[in-house]
Amino acid sequence: MDQFKPNPSNSCPLTPITFLERAATVYGDCPSVIHTSTTVYTWSQTHRRCLQLASSIAAVCGVKRGDVVSVVAPNTPAMYELHFAVPMSGAILNAVNTRLDAHTISVLLRHSESKLVFVDFQFKDLVLNAVALFPPNIQSPKVILITNDAPSKAIPSSTVGTDSFMTYESLVECGDPDFKWVRPKNEWDPLTLNYTSGTTSSPKGVVHSHRALFVMTLDALIDWSVPKQPVYLWTLPMFHSNGWCFTWGMAAVGGTNVCLRKVDPPAVYAAIQENRVTHMCGAPVILNMLSNFPVKDPLRNPVHFLTGGAPPPATVLLRTESLGFVVSHGYGLTEVAGVVVSCAWKREWNWLPATDQARLKARQGVRTIALTEVDVVDPVTGLSVTRDGSTLGEIVLRGGSLMLGYLKDQKATSNAMKDNGWFYTGDVGVIHPDGYLEIKDRSKDVIITGGENVSSVEVESVLYSHPAVNEAAVVARPDEFWGETPCAFVSVKEVVEEKEVIEFCRGRLPHYMVPKTVVVFKELPKTATGKIQKTRLRESAKALGSSPVSRL
Amino acid sequence: MDQFKPNPSNSCPLTPITFLERAATVYGDCPSVIHTSTTVYTWSQTHRRCLQLASSIAAVCGVKRGDVVSVVAPNTPAMYELHFAVPMSGAILNAVNTRLDAHTISVLLRHSESKLVFVDFQFKDLVLNAVALFPPNIQSPKVILITNDAPSKAIPSSTVGTDSFMTYESLVECGDPDFKWVRPKNEWDPLTLNYTSGTTSSPKGVVHSHRALFVMTLDALIDWSVPKQPVYLWTLPMFHSNGWCFTWGMAAVGGTNVCLRKVDPPAVYAAIQENRVTHMCGAPVILNMLSNFPVKDPLRNPVHFLTGGAPPPATVLLRTESLGFVVSHGYGLTEVAGVVVSCAWKREWNWLPATDQARLKARQGVRTIALTEVDVVDPVTGLSVTRDGSTLGEIVLRGGSLMLGYLKDQKATSNAMKDNGWFYTGDVGVIHPDGYLEIKDRSKDVIITGGENVSSVEVESVLYSHPAVNEAAVVARPDEFWGETPCAFVSVKEVVEEKEVIEFCRGRLPHYMVPKTVVVFKELPKTATGKIQKTRLRESAKALGSSPVSRL
Repeated sequence: MDQFKPNPSNSCPLTPITFLERAATVYGDCPSVIHTSTTVYTWSQTHRRCLQLASSIAAVCGVKRGDVVSVVAPNTPAMYELHFAVPMSGAILNAVNTRLDAHTISVLLRHSESKLVFVDFQFKDLVLNAVALFPPNIQSPKVILITNDAPSKAIPSSTVGTDSFMTYESLVECGDPDFKWVRPKNEWDPLTLNYTSGTTSSPKGVVHSHRALFVMTLDALIDWSVPKQPVYLWTLPMFHSNGWCFTWGMAAVGGTNVCLRKVDPPAVYAAIQENRVTHMCGAPVILNMLSNFPVKDPLRNPVHFLTGGAPPPATVLLRTESLGFVVSHGYGLTEVAGVVVSCAWKREWNWLPATDQARLKARQGVRTIALTEVDVVDPVTGLSVTRDGSTLGEIVLRGGSLMLGYLKDQKATSNAMKDNGWFYTGDVGVIHPDGYLEIKDRSKDVIITGGENVSSVEVESVLYSHPAVNEAAVVARPDEFWGETPCAFVSVKEVVEEKEVIEFCRGRLPHYMVPKTVVVFKELPKTATGKIQKTRLRESAKALGSSPVSRL
Repeated sequence: MDQFKPNPSNSCPLTPITFLERAATVYGDCPSVIHTSTTVYTWSQTHRRCLQLASSIAAVCGVKRGDVVSVVAPNTPAMYELHFAVPMSGAILNAVNTRLDAHTISVLLRHSESKLVFVDFQFKDLVLNAVALFPPNIQSPKVILITNDAPSKAIPSSTVGTDSFMTYESLVECGDPDFKWVRPKNEWDPLTLNYTSGTTSSPKGVVHSHRALFVMTLDALIDWSVPKQPVYLWTLPMFHSNGWCFTWGMAAVGGTNVCLRKVDPPAVYAAIQENRVTHMCGAPVILNMLSNFPVKDPLRNPVHFLTGGAPPPATVLLRTESLGFVVSHGYGLTEVAGVVVSCAWKREWNWLPATDQARLKARQGVRTIALTEVDVVDPVTGLSVTRDGSTLGEIVLRGGSLMLGYLKDQKATSNAMKDNGWFYTGDVGVIHPDGYLEIKDRSKDVIITGGENVSSVEVESVLYSHPAVNEAAVVARPDEFWGETPCAFVSVKEVVEEKEVIEFCRGRLPHYMVPKTVVVFKELPKTATGKIQKTRLRESAKALGSSPVSRL
């Protein structure tokens, strides 16, 4: 049995890029990408356009295998095509968060040594400002303008700073549809670079291999039971972990990608109706937004909604399900390319009361089939915690969709991916007796009050169930006596007093977990990816100083 | 970007064995394996039993990592459990075709150096005879008897030849449910050994890695759009390419495995009704059998039927679909572990007449998403053939589910998996202008008559459309003038004359393709896997000698 070594026919690199050519064969005449009512591409067209664009990226722009190509764009057809065309040119795709500022984008472009940056017209000034911040001795990336969704005349290339750019459509038009796309030499070759939004620390460049994204794409399709030819609405930004791999996934199942420039409830509901949307993903904030919007007509067909990130509060889950969304909930990080722990639903739970269902659904769940292992370990001993649903520990993972590492940051890489074969997520969770995982917090978000660990998420969940509360975040406020106390920041739908909120919590939480302070904001500060910026709230809480009444 | 190497957390071996533990967590109380109305296991029980069995295989039987463990059994709960328990003990699973004779099984057991053989009571004599054929100087494998599906008392181990054996259930009972199963050290480690049935040549031992079977399992689930918790009826033998990976696949989606000792139409229809079967697989001969059986009640729910091997004749497709089966059709070989080319259906084909639909459905189709590439190449030039639906060539493949190679047969391995990175299937096909592949024949089944290549499958397809014909096979009959002529062997439902069959073909085929000889059999000779034994028919045709009338 020892005779066998991998050979060229069985070890050809696993990559999601091969899905596109197949989609063109099987679903050639079916819609691939829709944007507004005027732009509809078929899979044949998308395949052809990607080949043309890839050939131009290589031949016209001079991009070589292993170069980084950045893109700053909302969820448009161009953004979708670039998920194939950039790797087909041999380059590494760096989809940049459009909510970042020029300074940060400039840092990322320099850090990634990006050779080319595609920019949607909406973000032209942002990117030009970012490029203008390059020191004169450092070569800035070539800028390609995505003028609009419709084809336009080719405009000659020029240097940055003038107002005439090479356009996206001109590259597509002058490209070769018979281009022999650049296949990875090895499945461990990088395919993407994604900078984490860094709610709490400086951005890190997560590099993923062809292999990891192939594995994650298949895993995601099976875990969410995605059928053939779904209609997928892009409410999750594609720059957010490459849309949890559903960018490539839609090619695998011949789905229709419905693009949206801006996610607001009327546009989302209109797109669902017009296109008979079957699937969508998004952060819990999108669910919250959709649930608060006064809907005229109920959904005609059930819409499968996959959400991740922070656990959605039970009340939000209940509200959206009653509107016709079928909510699935999972857990992932940019470092694992998608959802790797999901709340696999048990049939017997269908007969439980709605509130029990919501409580079960708010748990992150079990590993997906392609993740090898997940565990929760004690930060001191490193051993698995008791599976009692209450002992906190750090969530650790191992599996085929884990990143290669952080770009140019060997220290951060080896801190996260340790020699013992585990990736340390920095997230805090528990394992319930039935084996289901529940996230309790980011390590740094745990509040330690009088020696007790308080999960900010648990307190937030109670705050969300208060009828007047719109959004809530709980952080540590320094305290001379207790060390820290829970401090709540809330935005509200109607006027409510601090005292009333505290009373509400007293009836529902152990005393030590009840916020000692409640601050009412009009809107909570958010990061570029829509997460509540706890770093800023933590600063505010710090500025409040020790609470005079906390010794009670 | 060159800094990155695989590390222990992202390169932990891909393996389908991890699906079982997850199934026990998610689907613990749901049925995993059902056999007759008395035997029903849950996923918790199956998981526990497999751990116990694996621990006994290692500790009691002394099997070590990398040893081969064989099993000779029909589709029973034990057969299913062994698909996990054997690899969990660190061993390689060799599921043996139960239709082989003692001599052949003896050859396989020696060739594989099997340490242990599990045998179902039904095949006890067969295996004892096989073991008795071992030369005295060669250590024969230990025999473990699977007495029945229900637990039984432990019987002490003994040497082969007496009538008391260690039993399967005693190994389960004495095993450790907390056994730490033996994970592969490397994803390229072998997981299975399957001997090809060898319709035309001596058996070859196909060895598959954990990685290949992981990839094939995910691929199969996506390609067939298998939902969560299907009810899967085992009409395909598990020893046949490990049930095309649906053995492990059912654990991945928490399905129910309905076992059947013997596949005959009444038993199949009864099992479908009793268990509300949703999915099943099988050779076209099963479809043929089901379509010819007089059904009392139509199917209550549609049953998805995936078939492979020889293309099913259009008439059989039409008949079974009218009964309520939703037939999907694909192409695979033991060497690729499952179905890697499948007839992906296009919505627009739904509006075509039924006969056109059947014609399209009889094509093998397009590669599944995890197969990297498929091509049809000219045997002389090695170049891709024209995509015109008529130019014949050899089908070649490359992808992640390809075997490691043939055991102890470096020559056969390198003949099949060539240095140019392609696996040569030995099957002859065409590619249609729309990119869909259609198999025309095994290389050795092509009949060359007067310099024209005749696809035996094409002639058979016409024969099947004759109302009196039950089964048909066409081989070459030697001919002094033409070199070879097509010679048909048919089994019939009602009396029919040779001349009438030939006339029937004349109206439907080019003259050179019409059989010059038609021989009517009661039943056609079959191989152990139910394929028509063309080798034997070829001998019969040869014995006929040159046809006196062929010079016409």
